[in-house]
Amino acid sequence: MSELNSVKIVGAGLIGTSIGLALKRKDIEVWLEDNSETNLRLAIEYGAGSGAIQNPPQLVIVCLPPDKTAAQVAEELQNHPEAIVTDVASVKTSILTELKTLAADTSRYIGGHPMAGRERGGAIAAQADLFFARPWIICSDQENTEALYKLRALIRLTGATPVEMSYEQHDRAVALTSHLPQLLSSILAGELLDQDSQDISLSGQGLRDMTRIANSDPELWTQILSKNASSLAPLMRSIADRMNEAAEQIESLANGGGLRGVYQLLTNGNDGASRIPGKHGGKNRGYQTVVVMVDDQAGELARLLQEIGSVGVNIEDLRLEHSPGAQIGLAELDVLPESYEKLASELVELGWRLA
Amino acid sequence: MSELNSVKIVGAGLIGTSIGLALKRKDIEVWLEDNSETNLRLAIEYGAGSGAIQNPPQLVIVCLPPDKTAAQVAEELQNHPEAIVTDVASVKTSILTELKTLAADTSRYIGGHPMAGRERGGAIAAQADLFFARPWIICSDQENTEALYKLRALIRLTGATPVEMSYEQHDRAVALTSHLPQLLSSILAGELLDQDSQDISLSGQGLRDMTRIANSDPELWTQILSKNASSLAPLMRSIADRMNEAAEQIESLANGGGLRGVYQLLTNGNDGASRIPGKHGGKNRGYQTVVVMVDDQAGELARLLQEIGSVGVNIEDLRLEHSPGAQIGLAELDVLPESYEKLASELVELGWRLA
Repeated sequence: MSELNSVKIVGAGLIGTSIGLALKRKDIEVWLEDNSETNLRLAIEYGAGSGAIQNPPQLVIVCLPPDKTAAQVAEELQNHPEAIVTDVASVKTSILTELKTLAADTSRYIGGHPMAGRERGGAIAAQADLFFARPWIICSDQENTEALYKLRALIRLTGATPVEMSYEQHDRAVALTSHLPQLLSSILAGELLDQDSQDISLSGQGLRDMTRIANSDPELWTQILSKNASSLAPLMRSIADRMNEAAEQIESLANGGGLRGVYQLLTNGNDGASRIPGKHGGKNRGYQTVVVMVDDQAGELARLLQEIGSVGVNIEDLRLEHSPGAQIGLAELDVLPESYEKLASELVELGWRLA
Repeated sequence: MSELNSVKIVGAGLIGTSIGLALKRKDIEVWLEDNSETNLRLAIEYGAGSGAIQNPPQLVIVCLPPDKTAAQVAEELQNHPEAIVTDVASVKTSILTELKTLAADTSRYIGGHPMAGRERGGAIAAQADLFFARPWIICSDQENTEALYKLRALIRLTGATPVEMSYEQHDRAVALTSHLPQLLSSILAGELLDQDSQDISLSGQGLRDMTRIANSDPELWTQILSKNASSLAPLMRSIADRMNEAAEQIESLANGGGLRGVYQLLTNGNDGASRIPGKHGGKNRGYQTVVVMVDDQAGELARLLQEIGSVGVNIEDLRLEHSPGAQIGLAELDVLPESYEKLASELVELGWRLA
């Protein structure tokens, strides 16, 4: 099989333009297409590709919103009978089903999902290294080794990490790890709409963490959620059932019952959370946390960061916590247990107050 | 009314011992009591108080778990007929109700709730500045100005910020901002228990944020949740209803219906999230985010922190994001819009890759 050296990208948004930029860095011929003349011109000016290429594309990548993906994939399969066609939609089974409905030649189609992106969209936010070190799912139910080979080549060129799974597993996995948290966050944040603002002013870091992704784009997410209904709806109903169950248990606690159920729910939460891989895809490594108090004066945090830098300990994670109504913040520094003592004592020596 | 100069603290755990340390710094007489001889000795060695004091206490602070609080408050009211008695339980109405059942003299009781604490508990984790700049709720339904005066004096001595609200409002507010997020996080994390670990390996920052507080102590939280059932259960049922509603809408989307409902749910999430106060209790100020790619080599993050320090821009918030399976991290730096250009260009000049 030949090297990958000519690619067509349909859709010059954040993902399409970023792929183009990554490929151009490796001297791949990139043919860009977009319905919007403005988008297209911007992406070409960025250096993400050209309006035409000399050779026929070996691989076509459809980078459109989920509801436009299948029809475009079908069209590309028809227009480029020698090419492999892939897409980047964050739902996969529904795209394959639509393609079959459209009687497309799916033997040359292979589903993909680069797990990268940012809150900002459009060609203007594109970056050649958007995919660097991120997983890029390959949905590989089929036997077409050329499709697999071409998509793997593309993924390697962007610096992403290929991860193979079936269409069904992909949709099940993103329902659990991405779509369900999105819905819960949106519903929880929506609960704040009609509440007293003094009540809301007691919000701490917990509620803030829980509602961060509630800021996502409603239009895009309506599409994503709607196209993964069969994986997502059962999870949603399971959460709703547990919520109702817990409400009953909590109420019966007042009468001495239900205690074991609530305790079990909280323990399950402990155990479930510990299954989420930490850094490097491994298990959480049980970091220790140094908490530093930072006066909210210009330059104080900068000074702390500089002094942490000078201590030379590797910081595994870092969070800032703001106290409501106060001119002070807490910087929480996660380090390996063996580094804890060194960081803590050096910071104290440098005059920082640890909490 | 006299100054506050003699205090009794019952319960030498994290909160009690921390209060003692804060008061001793201000030369207040502190009498410590604890059922556990070991706890008590440790707290006294720490310098949080003594096993006895010369003057009768003007204020008694009960720092026990919620299920032991009311009985102890009643006992202290009886044993110290001249003293004001307060507590630190994170639920308030149920304590007051229990006190009335116990026929305690509630005219000398005033409820309090310092909104501070850490994942680690016990005297060993105590810190004199645990409460510094944190809100400390005063539940002030009553007319007893001396109780209010004494509790305010205590709060000022610890460096916390007094916030007055009724017992009912306190419980409603913490149900919304603390107890409901806790339950949701635990239930979501619990959902991971029986799932395929390759599915879970796709977890990104969204799910990590949503399950951080699922690591809380099940025993303490069973008590807290059970004592706030009347505020909490309706919120839980509302979330469950919306979840079921959304599941139906998502399923009917596949048939062309329900789209408006899901879109509305996501938009409500946007709007609700924007009601959470950011830094300093004000509205979120619309920061801009500079994203820096950091190779995961010892010292690389430290070097970034040091160089950010040297740029001299005030960082409002900072998050680290780890790419699963990759030797790279992303550092997200939130800055005021007017500082964005400076930070971004100086970091690029220093050789950092921005994403």
